[in-house]
Amino acid sequence: MGKKRILQERVVVNRAAGARRAAASSRIAFQGERGAFSEQAVHQLLGARWSLLPCRSFEEMFEAVVRGRALACVVPIENTLAGSIHKNFDLLLRHQLQILAETNVRIEHHLIALPETRLNDIREITSHPAALDQCQAFLRRHPRWEVVTGYDTAGSVKSLVQQHLSKSAAIAGSLAARFYKCKILRKNIEDHRQNFTRFWLLSKSPREQLPMTLRKELGGTRNKTSIVFSTKSIPGALFKCLSVFALRDINLSKIESRPLVGRPFEYLFYVDFLGNIDEKRCQNALRHLGEITDFLRVLGCYREG
Amino acid sequence: MGKKRILQERVVVNRAAGARRAAASSRIAFQGERGAFSEQAVHQLLGARWSLLPCRSFEEMFEAVVRGRALACVVPIENTLAGSIHKNFDLLLRHQLQILAETNVRIEHHLIALPETRLNDIREITSHPAALDQCQAFLRRHPRWEVVTGYDTAGSVKSLVQQHLSKSAAIAGSLAARFYKCKILRKNIEDHRQNFTRFWLLSKSPREQLPMTLRKELGGTRNKTSIVFSTKSIPGALFKCLSVFALRDINLSKIESRPLVGRPFEYLFYVDFLGNIDEKRCQNALRHLGEITDFLRVLGCYREG
Repeated sequence: MGKKRILQERVVVNRAAGARRAAASSRIAFQGERGAFSEQAVHQLLGARWSLLPCRSFEEMFEAVVRGRALACVVPIENTLAGSIHKNFDLLLRHQLQILAETNVRIEHHLIALPETRLNDIREITSHPAALDQCQAFLRRHPRWEVVTGYDTAGSVKSLVQQHLSKSAAIAGSLAARFYKCKILRKNIEDHRQNFTRFWLLSKSPREQLPMTLRKELGGTRNKTSIVFSTKSIPGALFKCLSVFALRDINLSKIESRPLVGRPFEYLFYVDFLGNIDEKRCQNALRHLGEITDFLRVLGCYREG
Repeated sequence: MGKKRILQERVVVNRAAGARRAAASSRIAFQGERGAFSEQAVHQLLGARWSLLPCRSFEEMFEAVVRGRALACVVPIENTLAGSIHKNFDLLLRHQLQILAETNVRIEHHLIALPETRLNDIREITSHPAALDQCQAFLRRHPRWEVVTGYDTAGSVKSLVQQHLSKSAAIAGSLAARFYKCKILRKNIEDHRQNFTRFWLLSKSPREQLPMTLRKELGGTRNKTSIVFSTKSIPGALFKCLSVFALRDINLSKIESRPLVGRPFEYLFYVDFLGNIDEKRCQNALRHLGEITDFLRVLGCYREG
């Protein structure tokens, strides 16, 4: 009877572990509060029916995927105004995840307040400094508002609700307004309409081992490949590297050099090319590139977003 | 007598305008509060004896140089963790300034407090979100401190002093501690030691027309040139562009592509090459590049920092 009890307990434990695994297998991690632009990227990539795992930092988010607490994560990698986010390329290289898909989110900033707040009630405005910086023309038209910096755009909306700030407004995206049941008082208060952030969906497992539910969302045709490589800084080194694509009529959609700090005259290159790694010409180009570079890694092959 | 008085007044007015011009001719603009990393860049580039014009935004800073309120300005253009700051490249292109010099500032974050504050007194810590993000390991060791976001690293130190916050600390560079007469409680609390920001010194006038005092600081040998160009996205377009350098054994130290938003398949390229635009081979390379590109501009020729 003692033995039976132990067995039952083990079953309970295994069921709990199974439930945790099941939850993890449908969970998508992102950095920021609920309602963040990263959550909007999840919706654009995979629809709205996934359970989400908001993380405080990018490090925490990568860890969640590596340790199996989430099936995949969504990470911003470049912005049309702010440039490439090198830190996230570093985390990607360190954690050996792979790119499954990409999407571009238009960064639209709105003036958001509690449902009862009117424009004339506002005394204070809060958001992440980058968002405040991107709405300068609008803020200049309201010189009496006190500007308060917050840690996050969506987090600023969350604070309005949690602290019931009826004389404050926040700057964030529409998803934050919807999630925290707040009101948009002014739409599109950003200075630049051409503000886009590019996101990647990353996972630990290769595409073939992913659950069918996720694979279905990724679509069929993969026509873009992202790679990273390093070369010594000798005249013409990069030229030789690019020749492997030019000689095979493979078009590049991104190239960026990045000095390797602490190793003078060595560079890391990020390259995106239009092609599938299963194509013969792409395989030849990568083999050829391997002959010239010190280090080469394929980050992923996916459908252009 | 009436006429004489008018004349005298005019002289006074002219003297005031002269004094303003004189002040502007020795003034260097930068974005941020006094004690910011940009001010440290001014010191590294030009020494400490220039009068400074702190500006609230990069737009305001560029305007100050264009309208003659400052002789030059110092602008961050890329960071080893955060990448290139596209926005400042855009402002540079729009305002037709030119690069006179470059420098790399190591971003060292310190824990800074009022002189009477001890480590045990601290209840709250404040800084720009990017600085807080770069000191995560240190903050995890002090989980009871309330983290408050500020608009600026040096500005957070200024607030300690202005509001006499003896139970708070800020995260900023050593120059901010010195400028606001505060104390460094812990040195180098940043997660990554390899955090550098590259700055350019920009002016409206070409080097030859600058006051001797400034030209003296810039040094003699100019061995680096920064250019920007655009090409159509046809296979091999970039390869052809780079051939103009490879064929003449000119080494590149940076290359970055940037999609032109709203103009699909068109790209802007930033390239730095090691060479002086007065050299024959560089002039030939640029003339050759002009044949292939839709748009080409030399941003400046300067000594490698």
